[in-house]
Amino acid sequence: MIFGVLICTQFAMFCKWLGVAMAEFDLIADIRSRAASSPFVDLGIGDDAALLSSLLLEGGKQLVVTKDVVMDGTDFLIEECGYRAAGRKALAVNLSDMAAMGGEPVVGFVGLVLPKVVSQREALELMSGIEELAREFKTVIAGGDTNSWDGKLAVSVTLLGRVAKGRAVTRSGAQAGDIICVTGALGGSILGHHLTFTPRVTEASWLASRYAIHAMMDLSDGLSSDIQHLIHESKVGTILDATLIPVTNDAKTLSQTSGRSAVDHALHDGEDFELLFTLAPEEYRRLAEDDSKPCQVYAIGEVTDDRESRIRREDGVIETLVVGGYRHSLGE
Amino acid sequence: MIFGVLICTQFAMFCKWLGVAMAEFDLIADIRSRAASSPFVDLGIGDDAALLSSLLLEGGKQLVVTKDVVMDGTDFLIEECGYRAAGRKALAVNLSDMAAMGGEPVVGFVGLVLPKVVSQREALELMSGIEELAREFKTVIAGGDTNSWDGKLAVSVTLLGRVAKGRAVTRSGAQAGDIICVTGALGGSILGHHLTFTPRVTEASWLASRYAIHAMMDLSDGLSSDIQHLIHESKVGTILDATLIPVTNDAKTLSQTSGRSAVDHALHDGEDFELLFTLAPEEYRRLAEDDSKPCQVYAIGEVTDDRESRIRREDGVIETLVVGGYRHSLGE
Repeated sequence: MIFGVLICTQFAMFCKWLGVAMAEFDLIADIRSRAASSPFVDLGIGDDAALLSSLLLEGGKQLVVTKDVVMDGTDFLIEECGYRAAGRKALAVNLSDMAAMGGEPVVGFVGLVLPKVVSQREALELMSGIEELAREFKTVIAGGDTNSWDGKLAVSVTLLGRVAKGRAVTRSGAQAGDIICVTGALGGSILGHHLTFTPRVTEASWLASRYAIHAMMDLSDGLSSDIQHLIHESKVGTILDATLIPVTNDAKTLSQTSGRSAVDHALHDGEDFELLFTLAPEEYRRLAEDDSKPCQVYAIGEVTDDRESRIRREDGVIETLVVGGYRHSLGE
Repeated sequence: MIFGVLICTQFAMFCKWLGVAMAEFDLIADIRSRAASSPFVDLGIGDDAALLSSLLLEGGKQLVVTKDVVMDGTDFLIEECGYRAAGRKALAVNLSDMAAMGGEPVVGFVGLVLPKVVSQREALELMSGIEELAREFKTVIAGGDTNSWDGKLAVSVTLLGRVAKGRAVTRSGAQAGDIICVTGALGGSILGHHLTFTPRVTEASWLASRYAIHAMMDLSDGLSSDIQHLIHESKVGTILDATLIPVTNDAKTLSQTSGRSAVDHALHDGEDFELLFTLAPEEYRRLAEDDSKPCQVYAIGEVTDDRESRIRREDGVIETLVVGGYRHSLGE
């Protein structure tokens, strides 16, 4: 079957090299014509690579790089949400990672993997979703590539930003005794928030520049899962307090039919895209009383000196925090 | 059907948030444990983003960014080539773009979109293909993300490199009278070269540092197609000489059964990943006589002052160079 396979490969490549290559050229020309300029982009869309100015890192800044792919059927349902929302989310999840480091987003690169049935109009709508959010965060799209196949939609975004040297907030700085905080209510994002959330770029920058934040990350996989990364990287433990975890109205709505409590949704649902961070108790008190803060801050637990992940239940009992607590119910 | 859709979305997201999130964590731990260090990487795999040092751009260097996605069924057949070769190609196509700018590759980021059936061993094999080639080019993998779905394999690589300010070679500098050159024989890459080629990073750097190269790009879509980009960006025309175009043995092999000439394959097949570049005739003569050059250089035509893309056939007749000349035969 070598010949059969060869023909098949050739056909696929013919498609790429001919029809698709030309369609891509048109699409790229359209994307390019709409691209915003930036003092940091010396050469943008249209060559083999983009060129960014050394101004980007002047003053010894560090380059912050995030890369996150979103996919139809996993991160969104394209038939339900449309191309603009899908594009928006592709950039938003990267902006959320950028925020989690305390970074300032600057330049994005977009890899489009488009089903063959996607029209140029739809592809541009997807790009519009990316571009609109990019503008909000003073970020320009400076390159990428477009591809087409008989598979489903996937959008890969790489975001470059910067941070003053030594000012990035990682996952590894949490200290025993720290207060664990989140920037908003959690749970039920599947009812819409996972598509419409505003990445906490401004809030993270505000927090990191005014307070001694020890560790920070964004909540994407769900609190119970994400906090394991904090524990792992910081070599600490945590105790969350179930009565302190803020829950969304969406989590409450889901709990009415899911057979799970709203707190359970807040703990285990994903895609909240709020910031999770820790800081010393005295810093937390100062923050709690700071009327100028740009978002709510909820203290939801504390950092311990063991490596355990625990939760203080509503009844006061402390138990191990199970990652994705309802996992056992899958497959029933 | 809102509820139906919701359940479906939820299920997909449950999969992501639970099983897959955990599998990803293991995979990332494995990838991280093998990651090479670099003086430019302040923080690599394992946080929300990577941090690169400002040393990367010291001395006013420009940052070069390439982004290219490769996909099963389009860029390779995974069943035929295996995971290692697929991974290798994912990085190789980006290195080829980096070469085309005259850039020095430094740091790569990998977005894996894995079919659910892919095992951890296979995913690591794919990463090995990337890492081995990365080592050859003194490049480290400093981040990325892993995803799993019920679709086919796609691998998105973003490559960051650098170039001395003003020394990047773009597609837009070709001048009327320039000689058009390629660095190797063309055509028939589908017989294997498209998976095994060595990106022309060293050669490009050598050329760009010793000769006044006016324009350069890598040949990925096929000579007849790629040269259109040169014409477009440089606002020039070109005449290729069919008798001067070097053809591979693979192109000759294909021509025995394809009903097309070997030159036709060299003109229109894709994925040669050789460099196409232009330089003034006197510079070309100096280069042709330079015994120290690290690769063959073939003069295949010249740049004209119109916007036409033409070819001088074997019989001396000059005609328009049709992009992907055999396009009409598709669908027959």
